[in-house]
Amino acid sequence: MSKFTQLKKEAYDANIDLVNKGLVIHTFGNVSVADRDNEVIAIKPSGVDYEVLAPEDIVIVDLENNIVEGDLRPSSDTKTHTLLYRNFKKIGSVVHTHSTYAVAWAQAVKPIPVLGTTHADHLPFDIPVTEIMSDEMIKGDYEEETGNQIINAFSDLSYEEIEMVLVACHGPFTWGATAKKAVHNAHILEELAKLAMFTLQINPDVKKLKESLIEKHYQRKHGKDSYYGQK
Amino acid sequence: MSKFTQLKKEAYDANIDLVNKGLVIHTFGNVSVADRDNEVIAIKPSGVDYEVLAPEDIVIVDLENNIVEGDLRPSSDTKTHTLLYRNFKKIGSVVHTHSTYAVAWAQAVKPIPVLGTTHADHLPFDIPVTEIMSDEMIKGDYEEETGNQIINAFSDLSYEEIEMVLVACHGPFTWGATAKKAVHNAHILEELAKLAMFTLQINPDVKKLKESLIEKHYQRKHGKDSYYGQK
Amino acid sequence: MSKFTQLKKEAYDANIDLVNKGLVIHTFGNVSVADRDNEVIAIKPSGVDYEVLAPEDIVIVDLENNIVEGDLRPSSDTKTHTLLYRNFKKIGSVVHTHSTYAVAWAQAVKPIPVLGTTHADHLPFDIPVTEIMSDEMIKGDYEEETGNQIINAFSDLSYEEIEMVLVACHGPFTWGATAKKAVHNAHILEELAKLAMFTLQINPDVKKLKESLIEKHYQRKHGKDSYYGQK
Amino acid sequence: MSKFTQLKKEAYDANIDLVNKGLVIHTFGNVSVADRDNEVIAIKPSGVDYEVLAPEDIVIVDLENNIVEGDLRPSSDTKTHTLLYRNFKKIGSVVHTHSTYAVAWAQAVKPIPVLGTTHADHLPFDIPVTEIMSDEMIKGDYEEETGNQIINAFSDLSYEEIEMVLVACHGPFTWGATAKKAVHNAHILEELAKLAMFTLQINPDVKKLKESLIEKHYQRKHGKDSYYGQK
Repeated sequence: MSKFTQLKKEAYDANIDLVNKGLVIHTFGNVSVADRDNEVIAIKPSGVDYEVLAPEDIVIVDLENNIVEGDLRPSSDTKTHTLLYRNFKKIGSVVHTHSTYAVAWAQAVKPIPVLGTTHADHLPFDIPVTEIMSDEMIKGDYEEETGNQIINAFSDLSYEEIEMVLVACHGPFTWGATAKKAVHNAHILEELAKLAMFTLQINPDVKKLKESLIEKHYQRKHGKDSYYGQK
Repeated sequence: MSKFTQLKKEAYDANIDLVNKGLVIHTFGNVSVADRDNEVIAIKPSGVDYEVLAPEDIVIVDLENNIVEGDLRPSSDTKTHTLLYRNFKKIGSVVHTHSTYAVAWAQAVKPIPVLGTTHADHLPFDIPVTEIMSDEMIKGDYEEETGNQIINAFSDLSYEEIEMVLVACHGPFTWGATAKKAVHNAHILEELAKLAMFTLQINPDVKKLKESLIEKHYQRKHGKDSYYGQK
Repeated sequence: MSKFTQLKKEAYDANIDLVNKGLVIHTFGNVSVADRDNEVIAIKPSGVDYEVLAPEDIVIVDLENNIVEGDLRPSSDTKTHTLLYRNFKKIGSVVHTHSTYAVAWAQAVKPIPVLGTTHADHLPFDIPVTEIMSDEMIKGDYEEETGNQIINAFSDLSYEEIEMVLVACHGPFTWGATAKKAVHNAHILEELAKLAMFTLQINPDVKKLKESLIEKHYQRKHGKDSYYGQK
Repeated sequence: MSKFTQLKKEAYDANIDLVNKGLVIHTFGNVSVADRDNEVIAIKPSGVDYEVLAPEDIVIVDLENNIVEGDLRPSSDTKTHTLLYRNFKKIGSVVHTHSTYAVAWAQAVKPIPVLGTTHADHLPFDIPVTEIMSDEMIKGDYEEETGNQIINAFSDLSYEEIEMVLVACHGPFTWGATAKKAVHNAHILEELAKLAMFTLQINPDVKKLKESLIEKHYQRKHGKDSYYGQK
């Protein structure tokens, strides 16, 4: 029995959870989960339909993209995932989806503005969108460069405060300490994307949420004196 | 056995009903139910996922926000609920959701105009939106002030005729004599919010419903000579 | 046993079918079915939730709105239904819903233009919207006048070719030879309303479908040389 | 037993799959599957509700539209299907739906622009829309001319690279080597139509996806050096 059986199971469950939450159709999406001690990740195989996916199909690769265990080819987005793990040291899981509203904002090449407290409850900033890649990057090591564009977008931002990004013209990536959290973030992002689109349709001139309200909602849930939730 | 077992059960059922009606995802929402004789309310504990919520998790607090019974921390919105109970003497239940279309209007900081008879069947006025809070209120006793903003919005309105409000930049609160009615109002509000958004997309120049029609639909359902429904 | 047991069952089934097709929430909608030989209709009782509705609750009224059989009060829209039966001699069923997209067009006080062949497959004209009622009509015999507004909207139109209408500021009524057909029309109307709204959002300058195409699609399904369907 | 039993079963399953994917309501849609050796296709009978459709109802017609086997009248769109099979030599299945977002673009008479990588993953071009038919074509052999309009739209395009089209004012046709692929394409088209509509609502000035990115995404999935999927 593989020492990665449990890790594969966790990655499998998270991938299926994405489908159950309505965030992917067909093969459009993938979750990876890291084992930081062994410096490997478990990731969905490329192009395998969720309906036929089994836990043992999950591929184990190291952070330099070498296959450690598994008969199938890993997700074509693997290099983006591993680059995120190498740069964002504390994350334990990465999720990529093509969920409808988040993709619409990514295709619109617009950050999702903080327009309400539902957004501020989760993160106190606009959800960033990367720059559109140059032709050189696209023709080069594309998936690695996708990761680099994300890192660039976070040069002045904290990946621990903002656990999500829109890759311009493409779609969302989210992450978190655990697979559960990363999938949760993908779900929240889709809801925030929908809320922001509808809000601007009702009032195109609406202003960004005021700073004091952003601060209040974020801190009551995430600050050192937080009082949301138990404990 | 607690003397509040029945009250907790009622609050639990109403919270679950919110989920079943598609009005909340995750932990975004809460229902409280009042026991006016004992001057307490039963309210959802803070940040507990609906999937794991049990009737015995419901917290009993008095109208001054003291915990009377329960091991968990009550909803972070408790002070808003209790302030509403203290001011709106005849209500028996308060509901807060982050339902999509109602939140979009709240984030747009726009009242929902009466555009049709579906709206007038339920209330003969625009659904009010509160003022945006001042920085002082936000940095002060925030949840209490959220309640105050609602009370302020009703200075010239009747909470018995209009059992719902949009808190600016945040989302809807609804109430009613019973939990069933308050949850029903949350459901109706979401539908009215959706109808109004679509109507304005089809015809941005549409006029508010004429007064005689508002009056007719409201009175035939709620007036002293009402003839809608049984008896 | 009542001689109207079968008629009540038919009306009950059609009312439940409306719910199953997602065309009503709560008590917002009603179906009536006519027995032309006995000059009565079976109609949903007023304000009774679909969840608790039973076949024996259906009320039998004659075409002058007198209750013939039943303990419950008939739908508050009964006078609109009977007026339609008195004027549209060949119809056997009337349906009223508050389905989302059709209500949005009714509230926008706009006819639904023929923009594609899906529409022309069902009717070769715009779906008409009534005039907004005068204050006198509203304060008078309101439900009767609602019916009159529909009749007025059809002064130059054929109720056999166009089996649906939008009552301005209110919502849709549909009809047909049978309950099955009337409910089907309510379902089609909702889809046509959605398609037209989305089409105009993509291209606000789109032209009405050309006459030859309207004619072709309508005739291939409904004309004397129709070749759609079996036989 | 018919030598076409298996072919009918395949056509039946694909028709039902369309319904399960939410791409048709009522009788609005049809799938045909070709047996190229025998130069026949299996196609849905005209106007038969999916709920009552059985595998043995599927009609076998040759590529000149003669019925080879079956008691029912074939789909009224049969001539469009057979014309596509005669001209697009390598396709094995054709699908026609009235799915909501694709129909909205067809009614808007607008090609669906490549706005993101989800689109480019499937095809490297805008999804074409046919010209609006002339009155002569409409009054002539209409379904045959519908096919001709599709062929005309592909005069400079490859039906193997672009397996879908919008018939102006009408709706989508898709095709593929197998029924599974053709139905898959209908599903993808609907998602791309929705994404493009939402993207333009968020940013009406968005530019078409840059060529290098279109090329990259299409080639990584479909090019000779493709590395998406297994093998």
